[in-house]
Amino acid sequence: MAVKLAVVVRADLDMGRGKIAAQVAHAAVAAVLANLGTDDLAGWLRDGQPKVVLKVTSAEQLEDVIDQAKAAGLPIELVHDAGRTQVAPGTLTCCAVGPAEGQRIDAITAGLPLL
Amino acid sequence: MAVKLAVVVRADLDMGRGKIAAQVAHAAVAAVLANLGTDDLAGWLRDGQPKVVLKVTSAEQLEDVIDQAKAAGLPIELVHDAGRTQVAPGTLTCCAVGPAEGQRIDAITAGLPLL
Repeated sequence: MAVKLAVVVRADLDMGRGKIAAQVAHAAVAAVLANLGTDDLAGWLRDGQPKVVLKVTSAEQLEDVIDQAKAAGLPIELVHDAGRTQVAPGTLTCCAVGPAEGQRIDAITAGLPLL
Repeated sequence: MAVKLAVVVRADLDMGRGKIAAQVAHAAVAAVLANLGTDDLAGWLRDGQPKVVLKVTSAEQLEDVIDQAKAAGLPIELVHDAGRTQVAPGTLTCCAVGPAEGQRIDAITAGLPLL
């Protein structure tokens, strides 16, 4: 299976679509910068950056995803918002899981709906 | 003024918020990779990746933004969707302008509303 990147977003924060897009972009950029030089990143870029944007409905649920991804040894990047608009400063808004082989990501995120 | 990144999104394509987020992330990642090693990128990352997500309501309006940004010598990255879902293959969905000094970006995008 090809390499992919999942971004898991908290849907309980009442962020508008532009705000969500900025947070997801932040997560994807962080994932890329943290994985420069890896085979997984090279494969992911070669395939056209396949990504999936999923949702959770609480901070606890997002932390559960993070814990599982860490336990599986997957690359994780957390995004805490600066809080200038819409959410309180430091709020955990989303996390990137990957880039990594799709099956490894799916093992963590298969139960989550698309955003 | 600090360095920032603008992503300009077509709001006329009926993309869902997850789809929009993925397109904006693609644009931001492309902008980062195309500007590795530049002072503007370093400044942008140091400042916490300030970005603004703006909208246009037609392909023509997006192309007008692109033309203006090119004429101003700003970094631009276009995103054409693979078209597996929601839009036709090859559709131009959004573009990144920057990272560059905020004033130079604003000169192009000041008239555009937030997404």
